[in-house]
Amino acid sequence: MRTRHKPWADDYLKENKHIVELEPVSKHKRWKDNFSEAQPIHLEIGTGKGQFICGMAKQYPNVNFVGIEVVKSIIVSAVQKVKDEDVNNVKLINEDAKDLREMFSENEIDHIYLNFSDPWPKNRHEKRRLTYSTFLEQYKTILKENGKVTLKTDNQSLFEYSLVSFSNFGMVLEEVTLDLHEIEDSTNVMTEYEEKFSAKGQPIYRCVARFV
Amino acid sequence: MRTRHKPWADDYLKENKHIVELEPVSKHKRWKDNFSEAQPIHLEIGTGKGQFICGMAKQYPNVNFVGIEVVKSIIVSAVQKVKDEDVNNVKLINEDAKDLREMFSENEIDHIYLNFSDPWPKNRHEKRRLTYSTFLEQYKTILKENGKVTLKTDNQSLFEYSLVSFSNFGMVLEEVTLDLHEIEDSTNVMTEYEEKFSAKGQPIYRCVARFV
Repeated sequence: MRTRHKPWADDYLKENKHIVELEPVSKHKRWKDNFSEAQPIHLEIGTGKGQFICGMAKQYPNVNFVGIEVVKSIIVSAVQKVKDEDVNNVKLINEDAKDLREMFSENEIDHIYLNFSDPWPKNRHEKRRLTYSTFLEQYKTILKENGKVTLKTDNQSLFEYSLVSFSNFGMVLEEVTLDLHEIEDSTNVMTEYEEKFSAKGQPIYRCVARFV
Repeated sequence: MRTRHKPWADDYLKENKHIVELEPVSKHKRWKDNFSEAQPIHLEIGTGKGQFICGMAKQYPNVNFVGIEVVKSIIVSAVQKVKDEDVNNVKLINEDAKDLREMFSENEIDHIYLNFSDPWPKNRHEKRRLTYSTFLEQYKTILKENGKVTLKTDNQSLFEYSLVSFSNFGMVLEEVTLDLHEIEDSTNVMTEYEEKFSAKGQPIYRCVARFV
């Protein structure tokens, strides 16, 4: 997601340290302590402006949500949304999701969401796709046993690639949906991208894959 | 596939016993002997009028093809096509594919093709879908180790269902294509259905799954 530079972003994030983590590595092994309630933790990688994570947090008050977003000028909107909507079960991380094992302990997470991730369409960029095997290794480590990954995307090639990648890693596909908004899933929380693409009539793909 | 009754079909099939097998169970354990060349055997379930199997047979002369089609008035067209195109590496079976283990020996087949199979959309008919677990058990038995199943369909629900079914059975997805005719695959041989649906602009889904 591109957005204009926001010179005030740094200060704003520092003012909201209770919501956004600026030094996540130092919080390693104690994410549970960051929340008021000891609840399962779900992780969104690429939180954007926070519409999905805030919607999920309200829908599932018995879950704690952590969202990672690298772009400072975007994560400020997510912080603002958390404050505006007064949700207390969301924490954000302003960092690149290079190695999640530095940010989370083993078996700390119950579910991972990949929403409209960068498709990196060129073959030579395969390793950067968030469903490439090295990322799946990280997910497996920080997820509990039988932990799940939910992928949503409008990108056909990324979806095809990811199904094969999950399967080759030994994950089991629990659900595959080739047109999410054709089915009636009242629990689906839309991201900003999803609203935009779906309004244009583009199909949204969703897959839930489980580590075994 | 529906077609009008052809009263001459019985006689026609009997006249062409060298191409079409009318008592496949009796041929159990010796399919290799049915072909002039000892080559890998690929099996198509639901051969229809034979366009796919004849096209494949010409493209892959070093493979023997067996096609199963239950409808007599349809398989006659496949028999005719085999004769017209003078392919000698195709044998047909006029029988319901209820239990393939009665027709084939263990490890006898190298590859299975499911082309535009009946989607059986109602939940209560799930067991009739050719990608239901009981069918996968049969396929696994008659296929060689690491044998593959290729599924082609225009039916979104059957495709979604089948990906999940393959995965839950422990198969690995080698390829998933959500719009077969968008990619340039010069080796793809179209079925009659595929030509029709594709001409209408409908996407054709393809998946290759491997037993492990």
